[in-house]
Amino acid sequence: MYDVNDIRRDFPILSREVNGKPLVYLDNGASAQKPQAVIDAVTRGYAEEYSNVHRGLHTLSNLATEKYEAVRGTIARFLGAPDEEEVVFTTGTTEGINLVAYGWAMPLIEPGDEIVLSVMEHHANIVPWHFLRERQGAVIKWVDTEPDGSLDPQKVIDAIGPKTKLVAVTHLSNVLGTVVDVKAICSAAREQGVPVLVDGSQAAVHLPVNVAEIGCDFYAITGHKLYGPSASGAIWIRRERMDEMRPFMGGGDMIREVHKDEVTWADPPMKFEAGTPGIVQQIGLGAALEYMMDLGMENIAAHEAGLAAYAGDRLGGLNWLQVQGRAPGKAAIFSFTLDGAAHAHDISTILDKKGVAVRAGHHCAGPLMDHLGVSATCRASFGLYNTEAEVDALVDALELAHELFA
Amino acid sequence: MYDVNDIRRDFPILSREVNGKPLVYLDNGASAQKPQAVIDAVTRGYAEEYSNVHRGLHTLSNLATEKYEAVRGTIARFLGAPDEEEVVFTTGTTEGINLVAYGWAMPLIEPGDEIVLSVMEHHANIVPWHFLRERQGAVIKWVDTEPDGSLDPQKVIDAIGPKTKLVAVTHLSNVLGTVVDVKAICSAAREQGVPVLVDGSQAAVHLPVNVAEIGCDFYAITGHKLYGPSASGAIWIRRERMDEMRPFMGGGDMIREVHKDEVTWADPPMKFEAGTPGIVQQIGLGAALEYMMDLGMENIAAHEAGLAAYAGDRLGGLNWLQVQGRAPGKAAIFSFTLDGAAHAHDISTILDKKGVAVRAGHHCAGPLMDHLGVSATCRASFGLYNTEAEVDALVDALELAHELFA
Repeated sequence: MYDVNDIRRDFPILSREVNGKPLVYLDNGASAQKPQAVIDAVTRGYAEEYSNVHRGLHTLSNLATEKYEAVRGTIARFLGAPDEEEVVFTTGTTEGINLVAYGWAMPLIEPGDEIVLSVMEHHANIVPWHFLRERQGAVIKWVDTEPDGSLDPQKVIDAIGPKTKLVAVTHLSNVLGTVVDVKAICSAAREQGVPVLVDGSQAAVHLPVNVAEIGCDFYAITGHKLYGPSASGAIWIRRERMDEMRPFMGGGDMIREVHKDEVTWADPPMKFEAGTPGIVQQIGLGAALEYMMDLGMENIAAHEAGLAAYAGDRLGGLNWLQVQGRAPGKAAIFSFTLDGAAHAHDISTILDKKGVAVRAGHHCAGPLMDHLGVSATCRASFGLYNTEAEVDALVDALELAHELFA
Repeated sequence: MYDVNDIRRDFPILSREVNGKPLVYLDNGASAQKPQAVIDAVTRGYAEEYSNVHRGLHTLSNLATEKYEAVRGTIARFLGAPDEEEVVFTTGTTEGINLVAYGWAMPLIEPGDEIVLSVMEHHANIVPWHFLRERQGAVIKWVDTEPDGSLDPQKVIDAIGPKTKLVAVTHLSNVLGTVVDVKAICSAAREQGVPVLVDGSQAAVHLPVNVAEIGCDFYAITGHKLYGPSASGAIWIRRERMDEMRPFMGGGDMIREVHKDEVTWADPPMKFEAGTPGIVQQIGLGAALEYMMDLGMENIAAHEAGLAAYAGDRLGGLNWLQVQGRAPGKAAIFSFTLDGAAHAHDISTILDKKGVAVRAGHHCAGPLMDHLGVSATCRASFGLYNTEAEVDALVDALELAHELFA
C-alpha cells in the first residue's frame, strides 16, 4: 500500500485552490490529473528530444522514435498483452472503437447482423455501432442492467445468437461503477466464435487488467484518464482480428508503397496508425503507466476499494440522496440525485463553491439514463490520489446543497 | 523583420548539441521545434488548469473549456476564416483529410466519379482517395508537375470534367517546395461547382494564408509543423460543405441525444469532434499560432525567402548535387540527390555526424518519386529560426559527404 498524502505531492494541481478552498478533485471519471513525472516527460520531449519519428535517420529522430516506440512495450506490459505488436496507438478509446468499427466491422456487417451492447455503455461504445445500424442495417441488441446496477454476464451471453458479429461491452461503468465479468462473457462468446470488444476506458484506471486472462479480442484504453496526456491512448487487438482488418485512416506511415494506381499497406500495428502520431503524448502516457505500475495496480485498486467503501457508507447515510448503482465490488464512482427539484447542474455548481469538482449531466450514457429514468445525475469519481477527507468534504458540501434546495 | 538570433533563444532545443556539434535542424518539413511559449502553455495546461472540457460545470472544467475553445478563434484568425464555427479540431492534416473523405466524399461517391490530384501530393492527400477508388470505384485523375517542379493551375483546371466530385491539391509541396496557385484553381473549380480541398500542412507554416481569399472548401493544417504540440491541428470547412457532411467518428460530444434506437447529432463543428479532444495540445497550438502571428507571417515568409535564395545559390554551386524542383517562388525546402552511388540515407547519416538534421526517403510522396524517377532524396527544409550560417553548415557537411562517397 502507498501513503496517499505522499502521492498527492506528485500531482502539482492538487495543491491549488478553487474558489478559495482546497481543490477536491472528484471528476476523475471524465479525466485524471497528471503527476509531475508525466509533465516532465512531456516537457523533456519538446525541449530536448523532439523530432518526428520513424522516417528520419538523424540523431533526434532516432531518439524520439526509440522513446515513442518503447511505450508500445509499456502498454503491452500494463495490459498483460503477449505481444507489443498487437498494441495500436490511438488518441483514446473513442478513436480505438471507431478503428474497430470502420476497420473490422464495417467491411463484414450485412443487414440483420447483430451487435450486442449493454445498456450502460458510454457513447464511445454506442455511436460507432449506431453508424452501422443506420448505414448498413446492423441490429443492436441491448442487455439491461439489474436493479442494483450490476450486469448479469449470462444475459449478455444469452443475447448472442447466430447473427451476432460482435459483443461490445464496458469493463467498468463510468456512471454506476459496476465492474463487469468480461472474462465470463469472452469465454462463452469465444465458444460461439463471436469476438468481444471491451471498453477499458474506466477499468484500466482502477483495476489490474490482463487481456490474455480476459480472453477478449479488442481492449481500448484512454491515456488522459490514466493520468497521461490528453489525446494519448491505445487499443490492444488480438492478432487474428488485426489480420482481418482493413486500414481505417489513410496517410503516411501506414503504407508500404503508394503509386498512382496502387497502394499497399504496412504491417500491423503501423497499418492502423496513419500520419505523424501523438509522439510526445504517447511518451507521456508511457511515463503515466510506469507511475501507476510503480505504485502497483493492486495497491491502487485496494486504496480505491477503501474509498469506495467509505464513500458508500457516508453517502448511504444521507436519506435525501439516491446513489445509482450498488453492484457488489463496484468502483469508487458514485452517481447520485438529490430529493427535490434541484437539477444536477445546480448541485455541482454549489459543490464547486466549496472547491469540490464533480460532473453533472448524462455522462455520455444516454441509454442508461433512459433505463434509470433520470435525465442527469451528479457524479463523484475517485482516483488513486483521493482521500477519505475528500469524501468528507464532498458530504459536507452536499449537506449545504441539500439545505439550500430543500 | 525579426532578428533570427533573438528568435532562436525562444526554442530551447536549438541550443543543444548533436554528436558534439551544434544542432542544425533542417527537418522542419517533417516537424518543427517548439518555442518556450508553447512548452509553457502545455505545462500550465497540465500543472494548473487541467480538466476535461465541455461537460463540466466546475471551475477547472470551465477554465479548460474557455482556454481550449478560444483556440478555435485563434485558428480562424490565423487562416482568415470568416467564422470560427467552421474550424474543426483534428490531430493534424491526416485526420482532417480522412474526415473529409469519410464524412463528405464517401456518402456521395459513385463508381466512375473522379477526384483530381496533383502528382506531388503527400500520402495524407492520396491514400484516403485510394480508399474510395478501391472501395467505391472512384477514379483518381493525376496532374503531373512541370519539369521545373511547378504545377500549372490550368492543367488542374483542365482535368476537371463532368464526373469530377473534388479537386484535392497541396498548397505547397513538402518535397519540391513548389507553391501552388490554389486561388486560380478554386476560382475555376467553383464555376463548375466542384469543391476544392487544399492540403495546407506545409503552406500554413511558411506563408500567410487566407481561406476566404483562396476560395477553397476545405483547408487542413498540422499543428506539430506549425511549432505546436504533436497531435494538434485543424481543418477549416466551408459552411455549405459542413452541412453536407455526415459525422466521421462516433462518441461523446458529437451527439445531441443517444437512445437505444435513435441518435441525433450536435451542430457543427462539434458534430465532427468525437470524444475528449486533445485539450492541452490544442491550447499549445493556440500559443504557437499566437507566436507566429506576433512575429508576423509576412516577416516569416520574407525571412524564409531570403534563406531560400541563399540556399538555392549555395546548393546550385555544387555541380555534383541535383536539386529537385526549381519553381519560381519556391519555399525553403530542398530535396536533392548526389552524383554517384550514395543512397540518400547514407548522406543523411554523414550529415548527422556534423549535427545537421535532414530527412532521407520518399517523404510520403510515392507518386512524385515515381514521376521524378528517383527512389529517395535527402531533404533540407527550413523554418522561421534557421540562418544562413546553417545553410553554410549544410553545404560544408555535404562537401564532406561528397568526398567520402565520390
